Amino acid sequence: MSEDREITIYDIAKHLGISAATVSRGLKNNTMISKSTRKKIADAAKELGYQSNTFASSLRSKNTHTLGVLVPRLNSHFMSSVLAGMEKAASKQGYNLIIAQSLEDADREVVNASTMFNKRVDGLLISLSANTENLNHLDSFFKRKIPVVFFDRVHPHADTTSIIIDNYGAAYKVTSHLIQQGCKRLMHLGGNLLRDVYRQRLEGFQQALKDHHLPFIEELHIISTLSEDAGTDAARYILDLPVSKRPDGVFCANDTVAVHCMIGLKAAGLRIPEDIAFAGFNNDPISKVVEPNLTTVDYSGEVVGTTAVSNLISHLKGISDLYMTNQITLRSELIVRASSAKMRTDI
Amino acid sequence: MSEDREITIYDIAKHLGISAATVSRGLKNNTMISKSTRKKIADAAKELGYQSNTFASSLRSKNTHTLGVLVPRLNSHFMSSVLAGMEKAASKQGYNLIIAQSLEDADREVVNASTMFNKRVDGLLISLSANTENLNHLDSFFKRKIPVVFFDRVHPHADTTSIIIDNYGAAYKVTSHLIQQGCKRLMHLGGNLLRDVYRQRLEGFQQALKDHHLPFIEELHIISTLSEDAGTDAARYILDLPVSKRPDGVFCANDTVAVHCMIGLKAAGLRIPEDIAFAGFNNDPISKVVEPNLTTVDYSGEVVGTTAVSNLISHLKGISDLYMTNQITLRSELIVRASSAKMRTDI
Repeated sequence: MSEDREITIYDIAKHLGISAATVSRGLKNNTMISKSTRKKIADAAKELGYQSNTFASSLRSKNTHTLGVLVPRLNSHFMSSVLAGMEKAASKQGYNLIIAQSLEDADREVVNASTMFNKRVDGLLISLSANTENLNHLDSFFKRKIPVVFFDRVHPHADTTSIIIDNYGAAYKVTSHLIQQGCKRLMHLGGNLLRDVYRQRLEGFQQALKDHHLPFIEELHIISTLSEDAGTDAARYILDLPVSKRPDGVFCANDTVAVHCMIGLKAAGLRIPEDIAFAGFNNDPISKVVEPNLTTVDYSGEVVGTTAVSNLISHLKGISDLYMTNQITLRSELIVRASSAKMRTDI
Repeated sequence: MSEDREITIYDIAKHLGISAATVSRGLKNNTMISKSTRKKIADAAKELGYQSNTFASSLRSKNTHTLGVLVPRLNSHFMSSVLAGMEKAASKQGYNLIIAQSLEDADREVVNASTMFNKRVDGLLISLSANTENLNHLDSFFKRKIPVVFFDRVHPHADTTSIIIDNYGAAYKVTSHLIQQGCKRLMHLGGNLLRDVYRQRLEGFQQALKDHHLPFIEELHIISTLSEDAGTDAARYILDLPVSKRPDGVFCANDTVAVHCMIGLKAAGLRIPEDIAFAGFNNDPISKVVEPNLTTVDYSGEVVGTTAVSNLISHLKGISDLYMTNQITLRSELIVRASSAKMRTDI
């Protein structure tokens, strides 16, 4: 049999000496066909290399059972946990994921959204690039009522649901903790304020300062990409300040920038937490390895992923209506470790 | 206009008061149509929510421009770097990725392979689960000549190309380095030997011992999942040994198990590298954070990903023939850091 020609149910029927109708029913696992015949048909289909016509039937039913996932970067600890959660939830319901990354570039995100649209995904899961300024590139989805779920880096829109954690509340809690440990001159290493996650972390930080009658010090608020290098740069910035102008506590918008800032300060002889206390965000594996271990905010990327996909699929199956839900806020938890324990000796 | 009805080229034609043939040509960017008309057509298509018929034309041409990616787990630093590299290389050539994870379960890998086959991926990229024992689940791909590329966790097969690093050589180099630093009783924390990567790392370790006339000590060879917990368990195992039976150097098949073993030993008062030297594998972010910094093997997951996809697409485009290539071995590099510097004081 030619290997290039498409195998059809007629080939299977001929091979087994039964009717094509029986083969068709057998492949659909129709119980009108005896179990042993169904097995024979399935075995023959496999042997001959028959591809089920999900593809052609998708075209007829307009459902592809495929979800598009657009993320800023695939290679972060958080995003890989989110993807793992999404894949688990999707495959359980018979859905597949097509993925693309914007590499933090809004133009690339526009192209990716258009590709997903033309691939006819049944729904879209998206976390925005750092410099995305509007949602025009999603208009075609909204127009055709293809459901869109935002996660982590979200943007308010009437026709979508957002899956987030309470960034404001978590930042407020971390900052209050640092203040309780005796910090009076607090620094914030934050991210791009175009993104809600980072704006809300800054706002929680500021509100906690205000509620404790402490000043927000402009020159101790640094916005960066939150990379390893940004952490090293922040350490240099702190070391260049006159000793009296240095912070005595730092709240960082992620663990990477916190850990590499700590490493830079330790190399210069500063003591953590005695001279400067530290707190991060994400509970990344490095937070448990750095010495002293880093106080941080734990939230499960996997839960973000499963929640986003479950809500999208419930909507697609008509079980729930995504357009009624504005926002789903997931739990996060402050994990206190030695990097912030100025007052406590029991950690 | 109803939002549920499919928008066709006839709708665009009617909207613009031009012929459907002109719309069709314009959408294909045919230069017979003036640039301004092409722009008008593109704008109208966007406004009306027209979906290009890549889907239907895929059915005709039998190409989906989609590659399947099957991995053991999505949430590891290495795998997320591989995926990032794959996505970059694929999107550059107009291909999309559908992803699925086996969660180290061979049965799940079988189901995932069948899904990818029925989704009619143009090619498959696969890294095997820890307990996959044969390639029967890929037979349908081989039969239909859908190209398969293995990466990282590979299995010899005539019809595929494997993208690997020289695990044997890297392990030999690391072990020789530990021996040069004065280690005489070496331990190996290794992975499941069903997988070539771990078998080859063990073999490189054993050959280096042999070449330096040192014994391979059975009770100092521990096979595990290489997780954080496995590292903690290994520390306990070492601490339970009589002091004279403890290793003076440990070569670990990944950085996670190395770092968490080090943390356990340090907590018990052992000095690294003075009492026990350490070396890992992967150059994971934690290797630069643990104290002392971990000696390790660096190889780029991103390069593994781009190489795998580039080779697959070159084959699909007829530029090169994958069936002629047996194996592509990528460069890796030993990075010596303080965890193994028994002899050297300059690190």
